[in-house]
Amino acid sequence: MKNYVIKGNVCYSKSKDEFCIVENGYVVCENGYCAGVYRKLPECYETFPNYDYTDKIIIPGLVDLHVHAPQYSFRGMGMDLELIEWLNTHTFVEEAKYSDMEYANRAYDIFTEDLLNSATTRACIFGTVHPQATSLLMKKIEDSGIRAYVGKVNMDRNSPDSLCEQSVEQAVCDTEQWIVENREFENVKPILTPRFIPTCSDKLMENLSVLQKKYHLPVQSHLSENLGEIQWVKELCPDTSFYGEAYDKYDMFGNECPTIMAHCVHSHIDEINLIKNQNVFIAHCPESNTNLSSGIAPIRAYLNHGIKVGLGSDIAAGSTLSIFKAMTMAVQCSKLRWRLVDKSLAPLTVSEVFYLATKGGGEFFGKVGSFEKGYEFDAVVIEDASIKYPQTLSVKERLERLIYLAEDRNIIAKFVNGKNLFEKIK
Amino acid sequence: MKNYVIKGNVCYSKSKDEFCIVENGYVVCENGYCAGVYRKLPECYETFPNYDYTDKIIIPGLVDLHVHAPQYSFRGMGMDLELIEWLNTHTFVEEAKYSDMEYANRAYDIFTEDLLNSATTRACIFGTVHPQATSLLMKKIEDSGIRAYVGKVNMDRNSPDSLCEQSVEQAVCDTEQWIVENREFENVKPILTPRFIPTCSDKLMENLSVLQKKYHLPVQSHLSENLGEIQWVKELCPDTSFYGEAYDKYDMFGNECPTIMAHCVHSHIDEINLIKNQNVFIAHCPESNTNLSSGIAPIRAYLNHGIKVGLGSDIAAGSTLSIFKAMTMAVQCSKLRWRLVDKSLAPLTVSEVFYLATKGGGEFFGKVGSFEKGYEFDAVVIEDASIKYPQTLSVKERLERLIYLAEDRNIIAKFVNGKNLFEKIK
Repeated sequence: MKNYVIKGNVCYSKSKDEFCIVENGYVVCENGYCAGVYRKLPECYETFPNYDYTDKIIIPGLVDLHVHAPQYSFRGMGMDLELIEWLNTHTFVEEAKYSDMEYANRAYDIFTEDLLNSATTRACIFGTVHPQATSLLMKKIEDSGIRAYVGKVNMDRNSPDSLCEQSVEQAVCDTEQWIVENREFENVKPILTPRFIPTCSDKLMENLSVLQKKYHLPVQSHLSENLGEIQWVKELCPDTSFYGEAYDKYDMFGNECPTIMAHCVHSHIDEINLIKNQNVFIAHCPESNTNLSSGIAPIRAYLNHGIKVGLGSDIAAGSTLSIFKAMTMAVQCSKLRWRLVDKSLAPLTVSEVFYLATKGGGEFFGKVGSFEKGYEFDAVVIEDASIKYPQTLSVKERLERLIYLAEDRNIIAKFVNGKNLFEKIK
Repeated sequence: MKNYVIKGNVCYSKSKDEFCIVENGYVVCENGYCAGVYRKLPECYETFPNYDYTDKIIIPGLVDLHVHAPQYSFRGMGMDLELIEWLNTHTFVEEAKYSDMEYANRAYDIFTEDLLNSATTRACIFGTVHPQATSLLMKKIEDSGIRAYVGKVNMDRNSPDSLCEQSVEQAVCDTEQWIVENREFENVKPILTPRFIPTCSDKLMENLSVLQKKYHLPVQSHLSENLGEIQWVKELCPDTSFYGEAYDKYDMFGNECPTIMAHCVHSHIDEINLIKNQNVFIAHCPESNTNLSSGIAPIRAYLNHGIKVGLGSDIAAGSTLSIFKAMTMAVQCSKLRWRLVDKSLAPLTVSEVFYLATKGGGEFFGKVGSFEKGYEFDAVVIEDASIKYPQTLSVKERLERLIYLAEDRNIIAKFVNGKNLFEKIK
């Protein structure tokens, strides 16, 4: 069913500075696209079937621009280290297990089930270096109905033997085969995923760039997350003047190559300008940047620059898939940054982080993340009666509260590109 | 039933530096006190009834050293301001409603129910200025079985008319009557609660000090939370050299007067020394200090000083009653402080914040917050099977994960001072 009406308190962003709220209004899905939000349902839609969620909160689906599926197994654990030590001690050890398809199957079932039950409708996902396990993950996400880019990770240096691609030829062969085998899904698409510069040789990057051009794939990676990492990249790439150049010199940094870079906590001004000029998306992952003691990214400055920003859970440096939590922490971290680092950058507001979590990140997927006419129809219905209160609350207050307090059990319906994902399971 | 055995994975702290974990062991309750933790149950306890929570996680109840019950209604909302503006704009407007007993009844039912369903077994609670509503709150907490100190707030200056005590005589009369009427509960005791120096005149403080001595009550208040607040206190109390002196000059700052001071984000070294020398407890409220842009308290320095520290939710500057969340944020904030402010103070560890949330804060209540022999028997049983994972996890890993991920629905049993609080309700 691709034509229907949802009735309820419809909340969404047109811009980062305000919520649009229509109380007990109607949002119309027509052929998988949003046909508008209405206070009174136009006659032409009166024949559409109606989901009656009167008094519930209806928002666009949330977008997770950066999440590592194989790390979901150790969320909430082992966060006693900074980035590079954390990768070597916890992450690489876990990711190596995904050569075992039985383990991958069990782990990715859990990841996919929890992602399905969350408010997230779109995600950009890292797998592991293993093509087979990554294809399995893609199949599971495809079946869930969530729309996602999923990447087989590439890494051929500074990595344990268990994860290190043994030659560039083999890496390219595996990656190309994985791309070709996984291009035909409806909901899931491949994305090139060089892990980050420290684990990718020049020759590997050169060859991935060729694949990028051949298949017109988007790219996701990490950028300027941690001071030690940045120093390391400087040593590894003496011909670059800042970290982002190490991607840009292989034409994998925006422009014709749609690109997401996670973090950008410590980006140099030249890097920031390149991000802006080449339309690179920044995935802001505030919980991760806190848990790994990386720092706090100056998101207000990026927004002032007109840079495209979305939010990421960054499992497992972030502990939870909840993009509500990412919103909360984006506000909280910006407050601490204002207090402790730079009084010139005002804290982020609730409406700004709601925008980042919906339309801001959604733009990477096209017209996604809003209920404006013509947007792909992603919607989430939230039941907040279990979060009791004694007073009268406006819809805006209820929405603000949910950003801080919503749990998965509050998500009672979820629509992606017009499809009702919970219809069969709940 | 005050004699029984609980079987399960028993986890607790003896000191801040390590977890004590006994896998599928036994913790014994005898007459409401802990009779020890055992790998194999001693013969003398074999006749005790047995709660079989094999494979579940059993921890001491959590302690919330600082929570405002009337503010629970607006948790997660209105966090766009710093302390003083936040009080005037959001807090005082809400607290004024508690002159209406029907509203207070409805609101405190919600607060008490949610506190009961949380992992908290002990709390130090602020009411409002209203004696009648505060007595009602005490009755509800008493009936829940949670052990708590509850305070009628005192405030006679710089407050809106709706909350301002109209004369010191009236304030003292109301407060004394409230004390006398609420001294006989089993679980709940009164605590003197001058809101904070900006709202309490010298004459009011003088008279509260007399009441403190007459009834030997403990005291709770706020200290050095926000830079604007500290400057204001300096202007209001020109005869003091730091904020804490404004309590100390009325003998309400530790020593013979058991005292909790919330926050201490920006305490002067002389204040820190006075806190230490007079055994004042600090209630560390990291989420509140983040949400109100107050800053990050140097908890590592306080621990190095040997100061007594516990955790507080500080509803509604904190958004949730969960002391697990307070633990998580205490670690997270300490990491950001290390990164952004002071590299000499290492981030807090998981075992340290677990200690703060149990034995650290518990000490304010006596021998509370551990399963060492002779401690009052407060225990919480956590079911984590719903938080799925594909690998094998140790009990320590499961506990660490729960600190980041536990929700109320994971709390399946709760014992306070030997009483099973969920037996009748679940």
